[in-house]
Amino acid sequence: MELLEKRIISEGSILPGNVIKVGSFLNHQIDVKLLLEMGREVKRLFEGEKITKILTVEASGIAVATAFAAVMDTMVVFAKKHGTSNISGDIICCRTHSYTHNNDYNMVVEKKYLTGQDRILIVDDFLANGQALNSLVDIVRQSDAELVGCAVAIEKGFQHGGDKLRQKGIRVESLAIIDSIENGEIRFRK
Amino acid sequence: MELLEKRIISEGSILPGNVIKVGSFLNHQIDVKLLLEMGREVKRLFEGEKITKILTVEASGIAVATAFAAVMDTMVVFAKKHGTSNISGDIICCRTHSYTHNNDYNMVVEKKYLTGQDRILIVDDFLANGQALNSLVDIVRQSDAELVGCAVAIEKGFQHGGDKLRQKGIRVESLAIIDSIENGEIRFRK
Repeated sequence: MELLEKRIISEGSILPGNVIKVGSFLNHQIDVKLLLEMGREVKRLFEGEKITKILTVEASGIAVATAFAAVMDTMVVFAKKHGTSNISGDIICCRTHSYTHNNDYNMVVEKKYLTGQDRILIVDDFLANGQALNSLVDIVRQSDAELVGCAVAIEKGFQHGGDKLRQKGIRVESLAIIDSIENGEIRFRK
Repeated sequence: MELLEKRIISEGSILPGNVIKVGSFLNHQIDVKLLLEMGREVKRLFEGEKITKILTVEASGIAVATAFAAVMDTMVVFAKKHGTSNISGDIICCRTHSYTHNNDYNMVVEKKYLTGQDRILIVDDFLANGQALNSLVDIVRQSDAELVGCAVAIEKGFQHGGDKLRQKGIRVESLAIIDSIENGEIRFRK
């Protein structure tokens, strides 16, 4: 998506370890108008798929999921990162590792929010190694709901999490795929 | 707001310690259509205030803020709860206590996202003791931006955080104010 690629080029900065910082529009300050535009593109890509719910994980995935849901007229469910005191009843849980924060955590969803009538689109802001998305896929598979696919804002193609998911037969649509970062220059997949 | 009060009555449940659980539409599963409707009411309440940015705090505040921003055509900034590796540069920080999770944490915003041109509306899903909102107010006051007021989905009036903020001269608009919970019966402020 050209609009998003342009914003990554003009506003993104690259930190050590090829961490891409897009805090000015995606995950600290949020350009909701851009997110709604991205939502319209995702709606077009998944047209006819009759998605009922968007599943994401806290925290920065929530903004993307909410904007997409506003356009696609669906509900949102977000997985929580701990078993907090506000989670009760039947839960689905998946142990996950975060490379960004270098820790393990439980991703938790209450079972009743993913029903046999639901067709789920998994949404997140970033896809790198694919740990978070794999856990969300695992959560949908533990539920009675059906997985339609995944939609991501920015995929770091050189970390191959997206391609591994695609090799498993899961539909993954990323609005911008970065294939390499060399000498501070970002190259997108065509 | 009658629509929201009705949902609290029909779907909310009361946990020990008068914790109100509204995970089916506000902070686990999210009814984005309801949030957009709430955003239209907040837009009406703050008409003419020329709000440029909505400030909230992760995680569940992000959904409310994103939906409100979609309606009000503003940007969102969300405070992060730790100094994560993705935060760099000049930051504004406020130490906060969470009654829900019974812990202390740093609320952090990059300074450059709250400028002298910004008129800020603080948004959150819940207002109880007012710790989170007080910290967000403190962050705006440490910045060059101007505070317009606060808009909250559900205020627990019997915990008085909202009234204390109002006594300080801060405009606080809550779409539903619960004044008491007795024998499982929720009473709203008129």
